[in-house]
Amino acid sequence: MNYQAPYKDMQLLVAQAYQQQGLAGVESLDGFDPELANAVMEEAAKFATGVLAPLNQVGDVQGCRFRDGKVITADGWKEAYQQFAESGWIGLALPEEFGGQGLPKYIAQPVNEMWLSANLAFVMFQALAQGGSEILLNFANESIQNRYLPKIVSGEWTVAMALTEPNAGSDLGALNTKAIQQADGTYKIKGQKIYITYGDHDLTDNIAHLVLARTPDAPAGSRGISLFIVPKHRVADDGALGEFNDVRCTGIEHKMGLHGSPTCSISYGDQDDCIGELVGELNQGLMAMFVLMNEARLSCGLQGVALGELGYQRALEYAQERTQGANSQGEKVAIVEHADVKRMLLEIRSETFALRAVGYQIAAQIDATEVTDDPLKKDRVALLTPIFKAFATERANVMAGQVVQVFGGMGFVEETGVAQIMRDARVTTIYEGTTGIQARDLMFRKVRGDQGKALTELLAEVTQLAQSFESDEVFASMAQDSQQVINKMTSLLHSHLLNPDMDHEDLLAVSVPFLEAMGILCCTWQLLNVLAYQQAQENTDESYVQNIKALSVFYGAYRLPSAMAALKVVENAGLGLGKYKF
Amino acid sequence: MNYQAPYKDMQLLVAQAYQQQGLAGVESLDGFDPELANAVMEEAAKFATGVLAPLNQVGDVQGCRFRDGKVITADGWKEAYQQFAESGWIGLALPEEFGGQGLPKYIAQPVNEMWLSANLAFVMFQALAQGGSEILLNFANESIQNRYLPKIVSGEWTVAMALTEPNAGSDLGALNTKAIQQADGTYKIKGQKIYITYGDHDLTDNIAHLVLARTPDAPAGSRGISLFIVPKHRVADDGALGEFNDVRCTGIEHKMGLHGSPTCSISYGDQDDCIGELVGELNQGLMAMFVLMNEARLSCGLQGVALGELGYQRALEYAQERTQGANSQGEKVAIVEHADVKRMLLEIRSETFALRAVGYQIAAQIDATEVTDDPLKKDRVALLTPIFKAFATERANVMAGQVVQVFGGMGFVEETGVAQIMRDARVTTIYEGTTGIQARDLMFRKVRGDQGKALTELLAEVTQLAQSFESDEVFASMAQDSQQVINKMTSLLHSHLLNPDMDHEDLLAVSVPFLEAMGILCCTWQLLNVLAYQQAQENTDESYVQNIKALSVFYGAYRLPSAMAALKVVENAGLGLGKYKF
Repeated sequence: MNYQAPYKDMQLLVAQAYQQQGLAGVESLDGFDPELANAVMEEAAKFATGVLAPLNQVGDVQGCRFRDGKVITADGWKEAYQQFAESGWIGLALPEEFGGQGLPKYIAQPVNEMWLSANLAFVMFQALAQGGSEILLNFANESIQNRYLPKIVSGEWTVAMALTEPNAGSDLGALNTKAIQQADGTYKIKGQKIYITYGDHDLTDNIAHLVLARTPDAPAGSRGISLFIVPKHRVADDGALGEFNDVRCTGIEHKMGLHGSPTCSISYGDQDDCIGELVGELNQGLMAMFVLMNEARLSCGLQGVALGELGYQRALEYAQERTQGANSQGEKVAIVEHADVKRMLLEIRSETFALRAVGYQIAAQIDATEVTDDPLKKDRVALLTPIFKAFATERANVMAGQVVQVFGGMGFVEETGVAQIMRDARVTTIYEGTTGIQARDLMFRKVRGDQGKALTELLAEVTQLAQSFESDEVFASMAQDSQQVINKMTSLLHSHLLNPDMDHEDLLAVSVPFLEAMGILCCTWQLLNVLAYQQAQENTDESYVQNIKALSVFYGAYRLPSAMAALKVVENAGLGLGKYKF
Repeated sequence: MNYQAPYKDMQLLVAQAYQQQGLAGVESLDGFDPELANAVMEEAAKFATGVLAPLNQVGDVQGCRFRDGKVITADGWKEAYQQFAESGWIGLALPEEFGGQGLPKYIAQPVNEMWLSANLAFVMFQALAQGGSEILLNFANESIQNRYLPKIVSGEWTVAMALTEPNAGSDLGALNTKAIQQADGTYKIKGQKIYITYGDHDLTDNIAHLVLARTPDAPAGSRGISLFIVPKHRVADDGALGEFNDVRCTGIEHKMGLHGSPTCSISYGDQDDCIGELVGELNQGLMAMFVLMNEARLSCGLQGVALGELGYQRALEYAQERTQGANSQGEKVAIVEHADVKRMLLEIRSETFALRAVGYQIAAQIDATEVTDDPLKKDRVALLTPIFKAFATERANVMAGQVVQVFGGMGFVEETGVAQIMRDARVTTIYEGTTGIQARDLMFRKVRGDQGKALTELLAEVTQLAQSFESDEVFASMAQDSQQVINKMTSLLHSHLLNPDMDHEDLLAVSVPFLEAMGILCCTWQLLNVLAYQQAQENTDESYVQNIKALSVFYGAYRLPSAMAALKVVENAGLGLGKYKF
């Protein structure tokens, strides 16, 4: 069975985020309400299930091929791309001025989730188009905007993001690609980049590369990096395609997963004939790229949700069909009846649901920052971004492993397709900043950077919510356990994170456990938040409400305890690590 | 760089297990002392590094091929097999009477670990030969023993274990293969089996299949299963090869990992001409198979250790070579200097070391049971087997994921070879009984089954050990935390595990968390045990002792807290699970 969009969850969480982030009365969002969201979701679901999902395994099995310097995508992908672009899906959340539909992010979020569940390897161009457009909208001059944006928004051209070099991965400051200004103001680009997603392909006639490079007299390190737009084929003033711009694909990676998505090595200016234009200010390239990076990180977190959902659907379907063993009454049963299988399914289900709620709140919150300019909301988004990126992808890896486990031996056999979910998921904790980098960002930039203000405000909000469940018949213990986590976190904030006497390295070594505790707490927070929201609704679907309650109780009982363990590790910062000689 | 045997660890843990399990004064083990162990390990290490390790990636890339009904292994595998067999490695721990070298298990353990690290997919025939021989030694008549054992021990023939059928996986009681007695006392076998490791291959002229099947009037379920030995080619009384025995390979699986190891579907008696002989008593097949199964489970646990070690070596080497980013002084450093990378490396290192210690103790304990007949030791082995099998393999999956994470983007690219470790590891929590099945075995058969006696004795032993560290400058807090885990476990043993009012399904649903807590406690126990052992030694290598201390402190600080979290989940048994409607 193909992926089916989880409508009920999506509708609930979209409507809730819309209401809670205060988007209801906003004039510029007039008409962009949950009713429109539902209509869009319905169309997207048809496309995801009907067109994209059937091509997912095709891409995995065939992979991309690299022949005579050209990248060829899997059978059916080119046609699917054309259909995708022609249906207007690429410009869904891009400005109407350039041909987009200008939908707010809170509506684009469930739609993007569907694409990612249906065919992650295929749809990676979507986040690139979205992030690339935002860079151009924020930093590029009008001429570049007018030549490129209409083509990108329509899907006529794709965007590639060329950052990594063999010696510059997590540390972009080490990059070496050169940009030398010409008499006409453009730049000659020369250098080798690797790991470029959709850096070359046969889906479109042109590709707009956003390339980080250094001008000859730029300062060393990350302060001397500029951003250039470098098309595969040159672009005339009227937007017409010109000659080849000396942007050559030199190979594609043979990867563990995401076989359908070409990961390219690109040589710029091999024949000294590669021309780029500066985007934004000189030496401010990293700042511009961070716009795309933040976008990409949120998209990564959503990938975690999407893979969790896909895996859950496959595992549940298998568990309901596969008969094996007996229940305690000795009757043969489907394995969904076995308690340990139930546990695995509920771990996947509850964490996917909670992480989806976190992601939808962030999307709506970004919409809110654009209309309200509330600095608190911006800080909240900044705080949650590394948590969502790293925790959702780490958990997607665990969940994908559990999906294979539910399938047993059949999971290890490639034809069932669930091994692919696990292989595809594996890179999500690496690209767009590894989990370690997200954890450092969280601990040092987002928590220490504002003296714990955004974190303290978040903890206060969760406390208030937890207190409202303190005398609840069902959720009292979950509320108490959350409060225990919050108290411990508050105490560690002062004794460890903000303590100037704490050794920097000792803190870094517990930054991932700290992020894990935050991730679990955020999931708990959103589950309680959904429960509170549902209680306030009328005409709810009672059996659905009971299910959300059950999975929330489950999460509190089975996953929340790990937050205390992670905080105990944070408390132990400094033990053992430095004394070991490798 | 190829895999290198971790000598120091192996020598330490072999000598320790030998002493602590009381093997020193045993007459039948005269000469089989740690000195001999060291000599054997040295030879094995050369073979592992020189012959087997270089073929590991070859097997992964080429895989097995299935052509014209025949299985063809990867280039170089046949020659390596011949060398392996001719060097006498297969019969290392098998009786001298049948051509083996009769070494005790405690010496075979590090040797097997080396094979498994060097090339897991290749060496899977080894555990089958070992387990298959033990079945024949325990259950087969003399005629079968004389015809088969010399060939198996010498490696002239391999052994296959044919249990699973499409509808009988975890639940073997559902199997359908038929065995009909002939006038001469032999049986005609007819049925389809799947997932048979080395069920067919081109390494040897013959394969001895151990097949579970039912006679026509056998009772239903698992009480009606008998065990048969079914050769691919018939065997004359003098052991000479006879005609083809209608044992056909109908296909091999396309798997996520272990590509080099053929996983076969076999049709027995397609032409009604497949003859087998009964091994042991009629309808007692499962009991016999459990001998092999226990062996296989311990081998699986050792696979976890072996993959952890292989991954650690690869990750450490990469982390020491790869320069990226800077330390807090702003100097460019190898990534091994980054605190979060150190944390990942130490998680792998400490858990692999501790699990190795657990496995070596079990091996020596089995040797001890054979010479002392101490029922306590047997119960201890029975208690530890599911913990070692499930926990070591679950952690190997986590650790292999961390190895990829240390490699970053390079880990996701197949050519570095670390993705293979992760793919290979994936099935270890599934085959030979899933983690869920081990957890059920632990909770119900091993703990409830003897009213908690073996567990209580183990906890008393760990308590005593922990108490000896209570006033230790460095290990006091690890000792206290262990005691907290033990106290909680003892309390849950009575309130939950042995409580007849507890719902069976509710307990089952927390059996994996319970096993996880036991696994972490066992690792902690063995780390403290090694520390106590080292303190009692003279002439120790001081820097090595300091390293073991540092990794033990690390384990106590970073991993031990998860045991309390897992026990909190056990305490929460019954919450949420039953109320969710899938």
